[in-house]
Amino acid sequence: MGVQATHIFAPATSLAVPADLPVDSLPHPAADQIEWAAVLHALSDPMRLQIVIGLAAGDQRPCGSFDLPVTKSTCTHHFKVLREAGVIRQRLEGTTRLNSLRRDDLEQRFPGLLDSVLRAAAA
Amino acid sequence: MGVQATHIFAPATSLAVPADLPVDSLPHPAADQIEWAAVLHALSDPMRLQIVIGLAAGDQRPCGSFDLPVTKSTCTHHFKVLREAGVIRQRLEGTTRLNSLRRDDLEQRFPGLLDSVLRAAAA
Repeated sequence: MGVQATHIFAPATSLAVPADLPVDSLPHPAADQIEWAAVLHALSDPMRLQIVIGLAAGDQRPCGSFDLPVTKSTCTHHFKVLREAGVIRQRLEGTTRLNSLRRDDLEQRFPGLLDSVLRAAAA
Repeated sequence: MGVQATHIFAPATSLAVPADLPVDSLPHPAADQIEWAAVLHALSDPMRLQIVIGLAAGDQRPCGSFDLPVTKSTCTHHFKVLREAGVIRQRLEGTTRLNSLRRDDLEQRFPGLLDSVLRAAAA
C-alpha cells in the first residue's frame, strides 16, 4: 500500500522532464510518478484549489490572470507546489508561465480523486 | 454529548461502555462544520492515512495499538490533527483515547471523498 513517507516531497531537481516538452521546460513528475500525498497536500490549500478551479475549465492561463489576494512570490510558490505535485503543467512561453490542469494524468492515476475534491470544496 | 451520542459511538464488538463513562471532553467539529481543507491536510500525511486505514475496518482502537515508526508525541499530534479535522472521533475511557473513523459524518459532508483518497493511497 502506497503510504510510505519516502519520495513524497522529492526536490524539484529529481523530477523528470517529459520528453515531449522543450529542454528549458520546468520539472514535472511523470504521470505514473504522481504521489497521492503530494496531490492532497497541494489541494489542501484554499488558494491553490482556487487556481485549480480556475484551470478546470480547460484553458491555459498565465499566473498573472489569477486574482489572488497574496503577494506575487506567494503566488509563485503555490503554482510551484501544484506543478511539483503533478496537479498542473507549466509551460514556458517567453517569460510567461502558462498553466494547465493535468486532469487526464490525475484521472488516470487516481480515478475520481480530483472530482471528489472539487465537489468537497464546493459543498 | 448525551447518552444517545455515546451510544452511537459505542464499539460494535464486545467492548462494553461503562455507565459512568466520562463525557467526551476532547474538542471535535460538528459534522456540518468539517472543512474540506482540514480534511485534505489531515489525510495528506502517510502516517495519518495509515491510522485512517487502520480505523476503516470500523473498530475503536486505542492510540497505542498502531505500530507507527514515530515517537509517542508525534503519534499524539497525528491523532489530534485527525480529530480536529473531523476525520476521527476520540473518546476518553479512563486514561485511554479510543479512536474511531467518522466515516458517516465525512460521507454525509463530502460524498465519495474519503473513499477516493483511500483508493488513491492504495494505487
